[in-house]
Amino acid sequence: MEGKRPIIAVDAMGGDFGPSVVVPGAITASRENDLHVLLVGDTPRVEAELEKLSLDGASYEIVHASDVVHMNEKPSDILRRKKDASIQVACRLVRDGGADGVVSAGHSGAAVACGMFIMGRLPGVERPALATLLPTEKKPVVVLDVGANVDCRPYHLFQFGLMGDAFARDLLGYEAPRVSLLSIGEEEGKGNSQVKEAYELLKMAQNLNFIGNAEGRDIFTGDVDVVVCDGFVGNVVVKMSEGLASSLTRMLRKLLTSGLLPTLGALLAKSAFKKFARKVDYSEYGGAPLLGLQGLAIVGHGRSNAKAITAAIKMGGTFVRKGTNARLAETILANEELTRFSKAL
Amino acid sequence: MEGKRPIIAVDAMGGDFGPSVVVPGAITASRENDLHVLLVGDTPRVEAELEKLSLDGASYEIVHASDVVHMNEKPSDILRRKKDASIQVACRLVRDGGADGVVSAGHSGAAVACGMFIMGRLPGVERPALATLLPTEKKPVVVLDVGANVDCRPYHLFQFGLMGDAFARDLLGYEAPRVSLLSIGEEEGKGNSQVKEAYELLKMAQNLNFIGNAEGRDIFTGDVDVVVCDGFVGNVVVKMSEGLASSLTRMLRKLLTSGLLPTLGALLAKSAFKKFARKVDYSEYGGAPLLGLQGLAIVGHGRSNAKAITAAIKMGGTFVRKGTNARLAETILANEELTRFSKAL
Repeated sequence: MEGKRPIIAVDAMGGDFGPSVVVPGAITASRENDLHVLLVGDTPRVEAELEKLSLDGASYEIVHASDVVHMNEKPSDILRRKKDASIQVACRLVRDGGADGVVSAGHSGAAVACGMFIMGRLPGVERPALATLLPTEKKPVVVLDVGANVDCRPYHLFQFGLMGDAFARDLLGYEAPRVSLLSIGEEEGKGNSQVKEAYELLKMAQNLNFIGNAEGRDIFTGDVDVVVCDGFVGNVVVKMSEGLASSLTRMLRKLLTSGLLPTLGALLAKSAFKKFARKVDYSEYGGAPLLGLQGLAIVGHGRSNAKAITAAIKMGGTFVRKGTNARLAETILANEELTRFSKAL
Repeated sequence: MEGKRPIIAVDAMGGDFGPSVVVPGAITASRENDLHVLLVGDTPRVEAELEKLSLDGASYEIVHASDVVHMNEKPSDILRRKKDASIQVACRLVRDGGADGVVSAGHSGAAVACGMFIMGRLPGVERPALATLLPTEKKPVVVLDVGANVDCRPYHLFQFGLMGDAFARDLLGYEAPRVSLLSIGEEEGKGNSQVKEAYELLKMAQNLNFIGNAEGRDIFTGDVDVVVCDGFVGNVVVKMSEGLASSLTRMLRKLLTSGLLPTLGALLAKSAFKKFARKVDYSEYGGAPLLGLQGLAIVGHGRSNAKAITAAIKMGGTFVRKGTNARLAETILANEELTRFSKAL
C-alpha cells in the first residue's frame, strides 16, 4: 500500500438495515484493505454490533451522532434541521479534515445533498455527478449522472464526461477510457438540443478519448467504458437495467424449469443462474461515487448488504490512494475555457 | 369483420430488404385479415415478387413509384426532393383518400417526416408521437414517444398520454389502460421540470386512468399499460431493452452450455431459448404507429422480415376497423383546455 492510510467515515445508521450490516461491512473493509474506518452513529447501537464481531486486524473508532434520517424525509429538511444526523456528522468530518471520504447507503437524496452542501465542490466543477458501474458482457461500464442532476445544461454533460474519465482511469484501470455520449443515433448531430451541444464540447476536450454517441443498445456490449447522460436519463437507465434483468431472468427460469425434464433442467439451470446473478449483482461494486466534491462521497444502494458496504468502502480507499480527486480537478481546470464558453452561450 | 374493408398503402421499397419481404408480408396480411393492400413501389420489382407467390384470397394492386430513399439521406431532403419516392406516394394516397393508412419499414426518419408533413395532424394534436409495444412478464406495454420528438414541453407529454390511452384501448383491448409517466421516483413531485408539470396535467385529464409515475424498473413487470416519456428517453429505453435482452441472453446461454453436462444442457436450453426469443421478439408486434395523424402511419423496424410486415399491416387494419383515430381525436379535444392552459404558461 502506498502513502498514508485512508480514513473513511461510514454512515453507520444508513441504508435499510443500519448498523447490523454497515458495521460488519466496514470492519471487513478495514481489515482487508488497510483502511481506518470511523463508524458514525449511535454509540450504543454501533458497540452492540462490534461485540458480535472478531475485530482482529481492523482499525476503527466510533464517532457519536445522535440523530438518524428517515426514508420519507426531504433532503432539504434533513440538511436544515438534522445537524446531528449521522450523514451530516460524517460529511463534516470530511470537510474538517478528519476523514478523506464518506460512505453512506442512504437515504441517498440526503447523502447527495449533504455531500454537495457540507463538503462543497472542487474548483471549477459546476455540478457534482453520481456515477455508477453497470455490468456488461466484458468489463463494467461507468454511467453518469444517474440522478443527482435531473435538469442539465450541455456544459454539465461535458463535465460529467471529464469526471467519468478520471473515475474510469483510476478505479477500473483503463489507460484511455472510451467516453461516449448517450444519444438516439450514432452519427454526430443526433440527439436533443442539449446532447448536440454537449457533443461539440466533448469533441474539443483536452485529454479525453471521446468516441462519439452511444445508443441504448451499446451500453451493455462492453465496447464503451463511460456513458454520459443527464441524471433523469441515467436514473431511468439504471433502474431499467435492474428491472429488465430481473424480469428476463424470471421469464427464462420459468421456461427452463417447465420443460420435458424439469428436475434435470432446474438442476442445470440453478448453477448457471447463480453465476449469472453474480455477474449482474450490483453489490459487487458497492456504491455510486458523487464525483466533483472536495473530498469523497460514495452512496450505496439502500438495500446494501455487508458485502456491498465493504465494496463501497474499498472503492473509497482506492479513490484516496490513487489521488483521483487531484486528477479530476486537473482535467476540469484544463477544460475550464470550454466550459465557460458554453456557459456564456 | 365490421364496416368497409380497410385499404393499407404499403411502402414496398421500404426496410432493409425491400420488395422481397414487404410484398409477401403484405399479401399474407391481406389474405388473413381481409384487407386491401396497395403495393407502392417500382412496378417491375413488385411484379417479380408477386410472381413467386400464391395470390389466392389476397386483394391487392400495384401503385407505381419511381424513386426510392436511401438510409443515408436526410428526412428533410427526402421530403423536399424525392416527390416520387414510394413513401411519399404512399402518404399522398392516404392524404387524398385513396387509402386509410400507410405502412413502411423505413427509412424511419423519412416515414415519420412524410407522415407528419404530407398527411398532417389531427385537430388539436400538437405533436404526433411514435408508440411502440415492448414485451413484459405479462401483457405488452405501450411506450411513447420513442423518437419522433426529442425536445418536449409538458403538454406534449400530456397529449402522448391521451394518445397512448386510445391506442392501448383499441389495439390491446384494455378497458381503462393504466397510464403512467416515466420518472425517477414513484412519488408525485419526482422528476425533471418537464415531467413534474406533465404530472399535474395528466392528473387532471378527462377520461384517463392515470396511475402516476413509473420508474425504469416498472416498465417490464406488466403492471402498467402505457408509459409516457419524451422521444429521447423513449428511444434510449427501446434500444436499451433490445441491447440488454441480447446481452443477457448471450451471457446466460454461455453459462448454461459450459457446465458439467454441456450437450444435455445445450439441448434443454435450446427450446427454452427459442420460446424466450419468441416472447421478446419485436417482430411479433410489427411496427410503431405514429399517433395523432390524419390517417394512419405505421413505421416498422428496418430489419423487418415478412412476418413483421404482416403484423404491422394487420395492426393498421385493426386501427382502421376500431376507429382509433376518432377516439383519439375525441380525447384530444376533450382535454384541449388543459393543453392550452399549459401552453400559455
